[in-house]
Amino acid sequence: MTLPEDGFSLDSRLAADTIALIDWPLCRVRLMNDARFPWLILVPRRPDVTDIDQLDSGDQMALWAEVTHAMAALRATCPMDKLNIGALGNIVAQLHVHIVARQQSDDAWPDPVWGSGRAIAYTESRRATLVADLENALRQYGNPRH
Amino acid sequence: MTLPEDGFSLDSRLAADTIALIDWPLCRVRLMNDARFPWLILVPRRPDVTDIDQLDSGDQMALWAEVTHAMAALRATCPMDKLNIGALGNIVAQLHVHIVARQQSDDAWPDPVWGSGRAIAYTESRRATLVADLENALRQYGNPRH
Repeated sequence: MTLPEDGFSLDSRLAADTIALIDWPLCRVRLMNDARFPWLILVPRRPDVTDIDQLDSGDQMALWAEVTHAMAALRATCPMDKLNIGALGNIVAQLHVHIVARQQSDDAWPDPVWGSGRAIAYTESRRATLVADLENALRQYGNPRH
Repeated sequence: MTLPEDGFSLDSRLAADTIALIDWPLCRVRLMNDARFPWLILVPRRPDVTDIDQLDSGDQMALWAEVTHAMAALRATCPMDKLNIGALGNIVAQLHVHIVARQQSDDAWPDPVWGSGRAIAYTESRRATLVADLENALRQYGNPRH
């Protein structure tokens, strides 16, 4: 894996819908601002990439390693019955991977979160607590060796 | 990665909804019997696994390698505007990864395929052609080195 290249900028819609957490070696890690589901997105800092198989093989390995670490960080932070992983990009083309903690009591269960109702923004206090907890966990799991 | 263990059996609902294609080193590869979308599922042949992070690290690497090869086989076989990848398991708990070729003209675009309407079974002739094409591509891409 080479260092992230110049030319990357976070899609404006992803930026508007999410809260900054940390940059990992390949991906920018952000929290979806939707209190219904603890929901991370990983965005490889590569310009003009929409599908996983457009990444070179080193970047693909890095992406999967970082997905694994994001799962661990989410599991360490939030109660869940199931992890949901997805890479869709039908609406926002910039490659991004969703890692979502699902509970059988959540608003969308057992349906996917994508396209399910409208996001409910975190309250200030809940957001501050969750971001601190996630940042702590993401730092712990945040040095994937590539 | 060790060899797939005894004790694995394909979930009966996954079996009913899909068509056999090939066994790769880790996963059973099957085609969803839904003519609306070219749609592969990869099922790691491990008993009692529901989430990716329950696989050991060797199996996780094998899974990601096989997902990459499934993307290549699907791309070589079917026209598409976008690949969609997902691991949900909210309804069928047995771990399975979806790799779906999406087109902007398909029945669900831009929504996810999961939970979207009802499957339309392939006709016999279309099924025979597609299975032959996919098996050929899957054999070509089917020896991921772990």
